[in-house]
Amino acid sequence: MRELDHLAAIVGPGNLVTDPDDMAPYLVEERGLYRGTALAVARPGSTAEVAALVTACAEAGIAMVPQGGRTGLCGGAVPAGLERAIVIATERMDRIRAVDPVDFTMTVEAGCILATIQAAADEVGCLFPLSLAAEGSCRIGGNIATNAGGTNVLRYGSTRDLVLGLEVVLPDGRVWNGIKALRKDNTGYALNQLFIGSEGTLGIVTAAVLKLYPRPAEHQTALIGLPDPQAALALLGRARRASGDAVTACELMSRFAFDLAVRHIPGLRDPLQTASPWLLLLELSSSRPGGLREAVETVLEEALEDGTAQDAVLAESETQRLALWRLRESIPEAQKHEGGSIKHDISVATSHVPDLIGRATAAVAEALPGARPVAFGHIGDGNIHFNVSQPVGADKDSFLDQWPRLNRIIHDVVTAMGGSISAEHGIGRLKAAELVRIKPDVDLDLMHRIKQAFDPDGLMNPGAVLIPR
Amino acid sequence: MRELDHLAAIVGPGNLVTDPDDMAPYLVEERGLYRGTALAVARPGSTAEVAALVTACAEAGIAMVPQGGRTGLCGGAVPAGLERAIVIATERMDRIRAVDPVDFTMTVEAGCILATIQAAADEVGCLFPLSLAAEGSCRIGGNIATNAGGTNVLRYGSTRDLVLGLEVVLPDGRVWNGIKALRKDNTGYALNQLFIGSEGTLGIVTAAVLKLYPRPAEHQTALIGLPDPQAALALLGRARRASGDAVTACELMSRFAFDLAVRHIPGLRDPLQTASPWLLLLELSSSRPGGLREAVETVLEEALEDGTAQDAVLAESETQRLALWRLRESIPEAQKHEGGSIKHDISVATSHVPDLIGRATAAVAEALPGARPVAFGHIGDGNIHFNVSQPVGADKDSFLDQWPRLNRIIHDVVTAMGGSISAEHGIGRLKAAELVRIKPDVDLDLMHRIKQAFDPDGLMNPGAVLIPR
Repeated sequence: MRELDHLAAIVGPGNLVTDPDDMAPYLVEERGLYRGTALAVARPGSTAEVAALVTACAEAGIAMVPQGGRTGLCGGAVPAGLERAIVIATERMDRIRAVDPVDFTMTVEAGCILATIQAAADEVGCLFPLSLAAEGSCRIGGNIATNAGGTNVLRYGSTRDLVLGLEVVLPDGRVWNGIKALRKDNTGYALNQLFIGSEGTLGIVTAAVLKLYPRPAEHQTALIGLPDPQAALALLGRARRASGDAVTACELMSRFAFDLAVRHIPGLRDPLQTASPWLLLLELSSSRPGGLREAVETVLEEALEDGTAQDAVLAESETQRLALWRLRESIPEAQKHEGGSIKHDISVATSHVPDLIGRATAAVAEALPGARPVAFGHIGDGNIHFNVSQPVGADKDSFLDQWPRLNRIIHDVVTAMGGSISAEHGIGRLKAAELVRIKPDVDLDLMHRIKQAFDPDGLMNPGAVLIPR
Repeated sequence: MRELDHLAAIVGPGNLVTDPDDMAPYLVEERGLYRGTALAVARPGSTAEVAALVTACAEAGIAMVPQGGRTGLCGGAVPAGLERAIVIATERMDRIRAVDPVDFTMTVEAGCILATIQAAADEVGCLFPLSLAAEGSCRIGGNIATNAGGTNVLRYGSTRDLVLGLEVVLPDGRVWNGIKALRKDNTGYALNQLFIGSEGTLGIVTAAVLKLYPRPAEHQTALIGLPDPQAALALLGRARRASGDAVTACELMSRFAFDLAVRHIPGLRDPLQTASPWLLLLELSSSRPGGLREAVETVLEEALEDGTAQDAVLAESETQRLALWRLRESIPEAQKHEGGSIKHDISVATSHVPDLIGRATAAVAEALPGARPVAFGHIGDGNIHFNVSQPVGADKDSFLDQWPRLNRIIHDVVTAMGGSISAEHGIGRLKAAELVRIKPDVDLDLMHRIKQAFDPDGLMNPGAVLIPR
């Protein structure tokens, strides 16, 4: 095929993968939800090669699917349902161009693995705060494309808040050079912001300038037993105030979610004496040495006294700290021992989380009697991963057949509360139809106008985010 | 005129101003740089009235200029050079809809005065961190439209970082409802972000959800004498690390700028013993009680010992703190005593500020011998207000005639360094031609495409930001 010869000439024959076996890993979503097909997988080594690839594809009418670490949870990086597409994988563009501890910035290529970036920041006494389960294999270009969240959003914001500048190859092959390390720049529309979170539908991010922060000298991590989710919000407010806004994580777990982790994951134990109905993992961190532990202790003592908290334990060592985190992080894994799980990544205003959990739990009880809500997540951001485990003894496959129906029910609850059906995972292909169902026409119209303005031929990651009208 | 009758029916006759004397204040820029004309000034009282006004104007082909507190420095809110335009002033829409200290959010209408918002936050023990010279009369809708900066950007970000949700009347009169208090929402393109900083060219912001923070319990404010601007960056990094990132302001002043304030503004005095060539106002604040002063003292002692600082004084009272701030804030006023001043609002990567000051100073010496650079500003954000006072004894008017020429020279210096010609003031009408000159074609093309997608008839604040092609 002449077109592929042209693409191979751009990246070098070894970097245009066309053998079906070699292409296979690039065509599937981690959990097997999506399988795609592609003419080829291109692995460019530079921004110039990406630009040349995109120019060639635009001329030949070939669709392009940008791909990072393939850890996205909504199928945004898989060429599913596309007839004539190539995957453009950024994996070879993994250079850290510069680290500047005076500027507190780092310039990286899109294919850099998140953990590599974290380590490079650490080496100069800085912190790159983005942190999420896939950090060992996800790539920063994908984090930017999906505006990834994670556990530190409360203090440092989402990926959007951590990006100062971008370099983007546009759908017609031109390079937009927004790769600047400016803290302030009011010269026109926020093009950066438009690309962040657009999931590769408006262009391909090839490089970025990231914000760094001073590296924390100290962490204080507590596991706290609570009477109800409201208590978590009260505690969060008190801890923010008492600590100089040093709360970096605030993770709520229902008793059921927590017990699943303790029951199924070897080596985990419940360090608390009281079996409270809700648990909170609260972490504070600061680069200012000293004083943080006293602040946390004061907050906890007051909370235990006035009944906001029922029990609490503070990590006394890094080992204990990591053990507390494993309790929280093991919940999704533990759920697998209970059969099928239908997942939701939803958010509301922080103060509405208790109401959201109540309403969503009631909706599940009505829609799927016996199904077991596993509520946990980033309550400090109003973001709950409201998973639902199948009823005990139910058939897994027929339970999972209810996925779209239950999603719609929960999404209706969230939407009625002014919330979001995708707090941090994005839309991808998984939620594109739901987006049409729940977004007002005005929103969809504006998004389509932007898509049309940037990608009139609709070749850049078609089917992700927006379903062509 | 039938069209005006229709508009008067929408807002009520008393709120459609057509008398030339009554309209006059709405048609001029504060410093007299711009004077406009308008068919009328409409003062709507609600989002529905704004929507009805916009719908009517869109149908009648009347241009619309949204206007807040008229404190903008680039003429973005003045209907200058427009033949058939109305001003839509948000001043009557000044209601605070809700304050929620659990969510740390506030919902306000576009016409709220910034100081009113700050006070409402303070009342519930919170901080709305946006702070700038015009805060007593600027309105939040204008702050959002221009992505206003100010003195707290270093710690809390620009207006962009302080907005969670927006309500916007689109150029065709539809209302976009993005007024959500969500900390995380990854459901499609960042429409919020696109409106922020677009200076009323894509729609009219009618309301916003703002982020609040815990109110600081403590401020520590130091005036520090420095050998050079590099020392300011070294000190800033050390202070950020030692304080748990509690530095909220970091304002550099050249000796000449500082001396002008001391010389011309009654009641000001230099509290330092040493006449260092550069001065830094460093402020830290935290809601965590105690410990901050010790952290600052340690940083200052080390800096005095190793020569990074030459002299330093720490405010011992709120009175002393305000006196230090007056030194910094009086510089623009003091400059008026030295004749004409040509102003620049420029930024580069923080680490490049010393080089910027050096290069810009050299450029002034070459272009306008005898002219005196007055360099000061937010060095922590890389943003210097590089003003240039006229040569002693020169004719003011003929000096000010050099404004466009000197701007171009300084903007070329900044652009060559990857910087911004408008760090925090925006483009408005003042810098629209400069934007065309310095922005790459790709940037301009993308901005025009967005403008075309949102406002195909070009009726929303025409002439601001983008000059029609």
